[in-house]
Amino acid sequence: MRKLYVIGIGAGDPDQVTMQAIKAMRAADGFFVIGKGAEKQELVDVRTAILTEHVPGPHRLIELTDPPRDRTPSDYTETVRDWHARRAELLESAFADLDGVGAILVWGDPALYDSTLRMVENVLARGNIDFEYEVIPGVTSVSSLAAQHRMVLHRIGEPVHVTTGRNLRESGLGPGSTVVMLDGECSFTQLTDPDVWIWWGAYLGMPDEVLISGPLREVEAEIVARRARLRAAKGWIMDVYCLRAGLD
Amino acid sequence: MRKLYVIGIGAGDPDQVTMQAIKAMRAADGFFVIGKGAEKQELVDVRTAILTEHVPGPHRLIELTDPPRDRTPSDYTETVRDWHARRAELLESAFADLDGVGAILVWGDPALYDSTLRMVENVLARGNIDFEYEVIPGVTSVSSLAAQHRMVLHRIGEPVHVTTGRNLRESGLGPGSTVVMLDGECSFTQLTDPDVWIWWGAYLGMPDEVLISGPLREVEAEIVARRARLRAAKGWIMDVYCLRAGLD
Repeated sequence: MRKLYVIGIGAGDPDQVTMQAIKAMRAADGFFVIGKGAEKQELVDVRTAILTEHVPGPHRLIELTDPPRDRTPSDYTETVRDWHARRAELLESAFADLDGVGAILVWGDPALYDSTLRMVENVLARGNIDFEYEVIPGVTSVSSLAAQHRMVLHRIGEPVHVTTGRNLRESGLGPGSTVVMLDGECSFTQLTDPDVWIWWGAYLGMPDEVLISGPLREVEAEIVARRARLRAAKGWIMDVYCLRAGLD
Repeated sequence: MRKLYVIGIGAGDPDQVTMQAIKAMRAADGFFVIGKGAEKQELVDVRTAILTEHVPGPHRLIELTDPPRDRTPSDYTETVRDWHARRAELLESAFADLDGVGAILVWGDPALYDSTLRMVENVLARGNIDFEYEVIPGVTSVSSLAAQHRMVLHRIGEPVHVTTGRNLRESGLGPGSTVVMLDGECSFTQLTDPDVWIWWGAYLGMPDEVLISGPLREVEAEIVARRARLRAAKGWIMDVYCLRAGLD
């Protein structure tokens, strides 16, 4: 039977790849690369660097061009589902052409705010090709953020709420700590809670890494300005942050 | 200046260690091993296996005997703080004796329900020895659970709430998905929410790994019984689970 590996490769630093991921990559005959536009070439380059360093070549890279996606849809969930379906068609077609074991390298961890597994389940549900698949977990950008700030994500015994910028704007801080991913709008500026601390990081583990932390009201303007400058200079940004109310 | 690495080594499978962790281990002169009693010998063995496979020996292992801890305290936070302080004394003394770079290998990731970083900050705050330290993130048991179940932790756009058994009993399910760690009491049995799904895993990535998933009301008795048998047979158990209301 065909086999597919969905492999978490960590959050930016090529050395964040696990031995388990390296072994799975070595077992693969072809690597599906789902492009996110020219501006993310650097992210593709990190994948290539990982393969070059750890997997004997030549590497068969199969590029899939990501279908366009409405970033401000009226029905968010439906729009994302439709986008997943179109990506599934792309993967199905490419996997049908590959005679061997396939692999998809996923930033961070496949279980957290990544659509690869939904795409794979979509391909299986379509029923046109059959395969088994295995998931290799990776270091998340959440763990990477915490490591670079040398912080524990939560106070003793408290919960950690991992969410999106959209949810933060709609629902505010969770109890304990709140980690925000997928926030293109600096949603932390809309919080009115007193005494919130923020730990922010961009391009974690990469040469351009930037870390800022402090009382939210004191550092938020700096983060907004810095984020805008970095994004303009590089053409893209990946960032994540942790918020916690109560200054201890 | 003295240097200490706090290194996440993943959640059970020795191959879950990252290249970054291996490089840090190779730079260390001594490894502080904080024992959790004889029943966890297997966990110490995995650490030793990782070192044996990836780091040229001999390895200087410095065992610290964990101070006893009241597991059912009246003041939870205060009791944990006191325990951290006693561990800090142990580490300070051992690090003072080590002439070189130290390392502490942490299960999963140092940022999530692990007390090593608090212990290290305690040692620095005591002011008796000075050192710089670096944190290497690891794959969490949360990511490992999701990978073994081949699941995304959340529905599209929803949050993930990571918490403890204690908090689950007191506050119930969070919005979206709830991941529960540190639950020795099968707190999921106390939920009254309808239509909850559970994905449970024990000894993730180890030879004795057990996975159970399904509608909570249908599988909870099996999990409780299985957990009790496994714990009795091995003398210890490490498990984690994800809960989500709404059966889609």
